[in-house]
Amino acid sequence: MPASSEPDDDLLDRAAGIRLAAFDVDGVLTDGGLILGADGSEHKVFHVHDGLGLVMLRESGIQVAVISARESRAVEERMAALGIAHLCLGQSDKGAALAKLMRDLGMSRAQTAYMGDDLVDLPALTLAGLGIAVADAHPLVRERAAWVTQKPGGRGAVREACELILKAQGKLESCYRRFLGP
Amino acid sequence: MPASSEPDDDLLDRAAGIRLAAFDVDGVLTDGGLILGADGSEHKVFHVHDGLGLVMLRESGIQVAVISARESRAVEERMAALGIAHLCLGQSDKGAALAKLMRDLGMSRAQTAYMGDDLVDLPALTLAGLGIAVADAHPLVRERAAWVTQKPGGRGAVREACELILKAQGKLESCYRRFLGP
Amino acid sequence: MPASSEPDDDLLDRAAGIRLAAFDVDGVLTDGGLILGADGSEHKVFHVHDGLGLVMLRESGIQVAVISARESRAVEERMAALGIAHLCLGQSDKGAALAKLMRDLGMSRAQTAYMGDDLVDLPALTLAGLGIAVADAHPLVRERAAWVTQKPGGRGAVREACELILKAQGKLESCYRRFLGP
Amino acid sequence: MPASSEPDDDLLDRAAGIRLAAFDVDGVLTDGGLILGADGSEHKVFHVHDGLGLVMLRESGIQVAVISARESRAVEERMAALGIAHLCLGQSDKGAALAKLMRDLGMSRAQTAYMGDDLVDLPALTLAGLGIAVADAHPLVRERAAWVTQKPGGRGAVREACELILKAQGKLESCYRRFLGP
Repeated sequence: MPASSEPDDDLLDRAAGIRLAAFDVDGVLTDGGLILGADGSEHKVFHVHDGLGLVMLRESGIQVAVISARESRAVEERMAALGIAHLCLGQSDKGAALAKLMRDLGMSRAQTAYMGDDLVDLPALTLAGLGIAVADAHPLVRERAAWVTQKPGGRGAVREACELILKAQGKLESCYRRFLGP
Repeated sequence: MPASSEPDDDLLDRAAGIRLAAFDVDGVLTDGGLILGADGSEHKVFHVHDGLGLVMLRESGIQVAVISARESRAVEERMAALGIAHLCLGQSDKGAALAKLMRDLGMSRAQTAYMGDDLVDLPALTLAGLGIAVADAHPLVRERAAWVTQKPGGRGAVREACELILKAQGKLESCYRRFLGP
Repeated sequence: MPASSEPDDDLLDRAAGIRLAAFDVDGVLTDGGLILGADGSEHKVFHVHDGLGLVMLRESGIQVAVISARESRAVEERMAALGIAHLCLGQSDKGAALAKLMRDLGMSRAQTAYMGDDLVDLPALTLAGLGIAVADAHPLVRERAAWVTQKPGGRGAVREACELILKAQGKLESCYRRFLGP
Repeated sequence: MPASSEPDDDLLDRAAGIRLAAFDVDGVLTDGGLILGADGSEHKVFHVHDGLGLVMLRESGIQVAVISARESRAVEERMAALGIAHLCLGQSDKGAALAKLMRDLGMSRAQTAYMGDDLVDLPALTLAGLGIAVADAHPLVRERAAWVTQKPGGRGAVREACELILKAQGKLESCYRRFLGP
């Protein structure tokens, strides 16, 4: 399936059925940078726009999950602050992790979206009915994704994906209205 | 009101009356990045150009305030170093926070500017007589702002807004002269 | 030899014979930024895409080495996590360090690649049969390199080099297939 | 004097006489970002290319100085590692700080270069015989500088200035030769 940066009707149709949205961490919720200290400590940089997108998804009744090959306390802290319940960390096989999550939550492929950026995301991205790639994803990931965001990872790509899903489900306007007032 | 990147006469007229300038933090005074460590610590990146802009505003007799949904010791430290008196942190309702600040300081809407970047800033941005958006703000925020800066958040957008207000009030030249010498 | 950004047949021929790939750290595996704290601590930012590239090289039977003028615990931690065995840190003379490594591993110049970004890398880069520069390398380094990546240091340049070598050796497809599934 | 990005003969003439090169820190040796933690700690990001430029200046017999309005242990650590002797930190009046340094070292204006990025740098930049601005300096600073680098602060602008001075003095080739070998 060719990658495209503008959502067309087929894409919106697929996004309309999503009940579970799963996201990779490094390169998707971050720009891929691993900030390492001399003492073995690690910092990650999340973007505030992405956080609001995940909260809007969650408050609109969509299950939100994070799947990462790495363990990270920073990810746990950030997701707890955003009220994200499903954390699958330390998963070297992301396809298996997503498959288990889908079974646990009773989600079909057509109800599941996955967003990734590198080769290790391909099994999950092709398992999900809606595979999304960040703008700076590996070429092969962009090629296999149903949609490629305009923004790169860690700089609003996740927010773009959240708004696409909400828009396709007719929920984006009510999210906006909450902030626009009467 | 359509967003524009070049200040016109109407914009300068409005900026001329500003006595209170309030700024969002994440995405405005920073680039939106939340640097999180494994121990729950958080770092923020401020820009030195923005700091001088806030100081020039303050020294020109304009009240400067910061309004954020998040609590942050780093914000407190930075604003204390810049001599910024009005800190409204942990405010989930920024519109209410700005309304209270305006009452406390006896400021009208026409005397108040607010600068933001995301949906949560819309109530405050539309309450203020002069709403300003950073270049990389959410499309809806750019659309509702009277002016959109050329620079993105955390990279000089705040400085641009400060100089616009000072210029409109005929105070920018005297700020410059202080550094240019006799 | 003129620098080029597209691999041609001669370049692929040379890359096909590589058995040892050595990489500079600052400016190649990072964007050149040295994050220094008040307590003398240092952080480095590695990119997750580069990490997977190094692992794919290693798992394809190519020796991977890192040569740096600086000592860094963060480099040690990152390379240990990636299973990189050959760490040559604190080497003010990188040409000598690479020459010793080649002797220890019994590698000829034609079997050795080196990737760098600044003048201090020139002795190693010209010793190696395949010298590679990052997109934002010093002009003289770009000029002396057989190939210049499209991406800058710390933002995927190392991954580009890894995939070039794997592609030239006919190993890239099998790396991809591991993630694409049956 | 109009700012230009390409060195012309007049600029090279002026650079040929420089015996003291002084640099601002935030926005020049860094990209202007102040990384602040909740505990009041501060980190700065220096670029490895700039470090080599300062070392080449110093080893070519040119006095190198750093002048900053802020105190910073990170700056002290970095400059000590580079062997930079003249640190003028916590100087709110950079013009006075540079004037004192010139007196102490017996340097004339024609022998002195200063590199800055913001209004607070103007007194020192106009005192020095050769004023240099980074690409992303404040418009007024770019206007008053004799030369504007192609690269922004913290991303190689200092290295560009160092190489300009060394080139004008006929010392750049010998710096290069040290790395190119016989």
